[in-house]
Amino acid sequence: MVLYPNFKFEITHQDRLTQARCGLLTTPHGTIETPAFIFCATKGAMKSVTTQQMVEAGAEIILSNTYHLLLQPGYELVARHGGLHQMLHWERPMLTDSGGFQIFSLGHGGVADEIKGRNRGPMAKTLLHIDEGGAHFRSHIDGRKIYLTPEESIKIQRGLGADLILALDECTPFKADKIYTERSMERSHRWELRSFREFAAQNDGRQALYGIIQGGIYDDLRKRSADFVGEQDFFGQAIGGSLGGSKEQMHHIVAITCQYKRRDRPTHLLGIGGISDIWNGVANGIDSFDCVHPTRLARHGGALVNPRKNGGKEYVSMKNAQFQGKMCPIDSDCTCYCCQNFSSAYIHYLFKAREMLGGQLLTIHNVAFMARLAQGIRNSIRNGSFTQEMGASLRSQI
Amino acid sequence: MVLYPNFKFEITHQDRLTQARCGLLTTPHGTIETPAFIFCATKGAMKSVTTQQMVEAGAEIILSNTYHLLLQPGYELVARHGGLHQMLHWERPMLTDSGGFQIFSLGHGGVADEIKGRNRGPMAKTLLHIDEGGAHFRSHIDGRKIYLTPEESIKIQRGLGADLILALDECTPFKADKIYTERSMERSHRWELRSFREFAAQNDGRQALYGIIQGGIYDDLRKRSADFVGEQDFFGQAIGGSLGGSKEQMHHIVAITCQYKRRDRPTHLLGIGGISDIWNGVANGIDSFDCVHPTRLARHGGALVNPRKNGGKEYVSMKNAQFQGKMCPIDSDCTCYCCQNFSSAYIHYLFKAREMLGGQLLTIHNVAFMARLAQGIRNSIRNGSFTQEMGASLRSQI
Repeated sequence: MVLYPNFKFEITHQDRLTQARCGLLTTPHGTIETPAFIFCATKGAMKSVTTQQMVEAGAEIILSNTYHLLLQPGYELVARHGGLHQMLHWERPMLTDSGGFQIFSLGHGGVADEIKGRNRGPMAKTLLHIDEGGAHFRSHIDGRKIYLTPEESIKIQRGLGADLILALDECTPFKADKIYTERSMERSHRWELRSFREFAAQNDGRQALYGIIQGGIYDDLRKRSADFVGEQDFFGQAIGGSLGGSKEQMHHIVAITCQYKRRDRPTHLLGIGGISDIWNGVANGIDSFDCVHPTRLARHGGALVNPRKNGGKEYVSMKNAQFQGKMCPIDSDCTCYCCQNFSSAYIHYLFKAREMLGGQLLTIHNVAFMARLAQGIRNSIRNGSFTQEMGASLRSQI
Repeated sequence: MVLYPNFKFEITHQDRLTQARCGLLTTPHGTIETPAFIFCATKGAMKSVTTQQMVEAGAEIILSNTYHLLLQPGYELVARHGGLHQMLHWERPMLTDSGGFQIFSLGHGGVADEIKGRNRGPMAKTLLHIDEGGAHFRSHIDGRKIYLTPEESIKIQRGLGADLILALDECTPFKADKIYTERSMERSHRWELRSFREFAAQNDGRQALYGIIQGGIYDDLRKRSADFVGEQDFFGQAIGGSLGGSKEQMHHIVAITCQYKRRDRPTHLLGIGGISDIWNGVANGIDSFDCVHPTRLARHGGALVNPRKNGGKEYVSMKNAQFQGKMCPIDSDCTCYCCQNFSSAYIHYLFKAREMLGGQLLTIHNVAFMARLAQGIRNSIRNGSFTQEMGASLRSQI
């Protein structure tokens, strides 16, 4: 039985000094080059830009969150459209997550806090109860109770119709001790098997399933989880769960996990989108990244900039007085619609005057920036300058 | 001396039964067909859409408000960009108003309320004092005192650089009695003369000045004002001030004023944008209209629709439950980006989920709608069916 007849992952270039590699990831909605950045249309919309503007800015792949769409408008409505591609008018590859991450992170606290270990608070009321079957939670929109099982998550993702889908896992909180983390990981493995069985039973070739490597901040658990996920017939693998409480710990866990991952499969690092974190991830063999950071930052006035040209900074706030009256674009080398047509002074003014166009123009810039960053990383792998380029970028930030 | 070497207004078609006419209005930034609708980039931005999206939706001309730009970011910054066209990246014709209308309407109450006679409240604190020289007011942003004179308004509009600019007038409040309205009108005439002299003294051929016909709701004052404005060397004429407290009164005043206006000059009706009001205005010989209505309505979830296909309604709220699960576009005959690619159900969902993309997509639809309405009106004048088309549209609303 061919599980993934319409999907392919080919490694086209391998860096000699690091694990960095270029690949081609083929899906029913086209082929993308990796390493790639996946932009977040969390609730089935890129918030301040259209999907057409995403294409114009150079985005190749986006994701939506199963949890949000399950609550509103419901996956049945998306399915009636023929799936997310049709509803959003997005013709390129898409990914959906399993819904698990949001259930647990909303239960425990903020999503980004959870990955990065910043949350220590008590569980909020949205996550009611986890049992072997799945997770009981309450909709924060209308209060109804929902029971998300591995089978249900796959069924929902089938309705959403993204090319790449994720197995359901428990996202272990950062504060969990090793005993809890290990038990949680083992349950995640059982859930991932159930996800796979549900996927395989109804597989029509339109979707490819990723397993998720758990294990928290414990090296030996990460190895066990990577081995387990690698043994199953997943198309790809994602690195999930807590990555620790500091950049150093995150880089360590990513490096350890990547040592044990399947090298022939596409590997996604969930929820990470800082410039230095992407360089580090790629050096360890990560093929794709996602994070709300570039687009959320834009809506709050932050423009992504090259750390090497900006004293190590990854972004600047366009609200700062330094941009008042500054006639040049945000980045005169940037070919995006924002930088080609508008001054820094105009963007500064739009945020000062609370004109929502400011967030839209910065989103276009930040999307173009991330697409170009990924392109630059791929080029450096192809022409043998990856280590040098990464070094120059990271050194500027010391 | 040729005052307007780079401007021209040609009437290309005259309806036989009404005063409706088609024209070509030529400016240094191109020629537009009239009757035309002018979209409001009030503070130098179309809020939820880019100028590129405005062009794609079919907008031919936009306006910005001198009052808003004077307070923030200041006209000097706009001038440093080379004018609004460069700052906003808008290459087609533009109009600015004189700033007077906002000063008085903010002083007296809401802008739309003022034109339509809905405001009876006391003067707010932003308008401090009017004297023969000009208007003293206070910035609602930083509290500084500003003195706007006719000369200053023209100087500011020169810095803003729009193609079509307006003389400074006093926008007489609806509640004013005939004695006040008459005195105010006479002062407006003196201010318009001063505006013209300042304009002519520095005229470099890049801009064309419109006079404004005042006179409130009094037929004889409207005649006197139309005669006065017609005697000056303005390029065009705008109908300003209060248009009364009801649709009937508005249509009466527009009709009366149009009887006495110069027929060889382009005529703009300030602040009016309802579908039936536009048909009525065109029938009286109005060549252009402006109103925030189409774009503001969009941001609040309102989609403009053809009254003849929607039981006389000029718009529907996409938040209404009737659109939940409705798979067809807002208007299957509409060729805009929104209607070509997205379902009513998706737009409904975006507003329910407070996703700002909803406002953006509806803005595109409403702009396309208004551009197509103007196109349809022009076509009906050209092919002799104007009265018939107007009748069908108005009858659907009875």
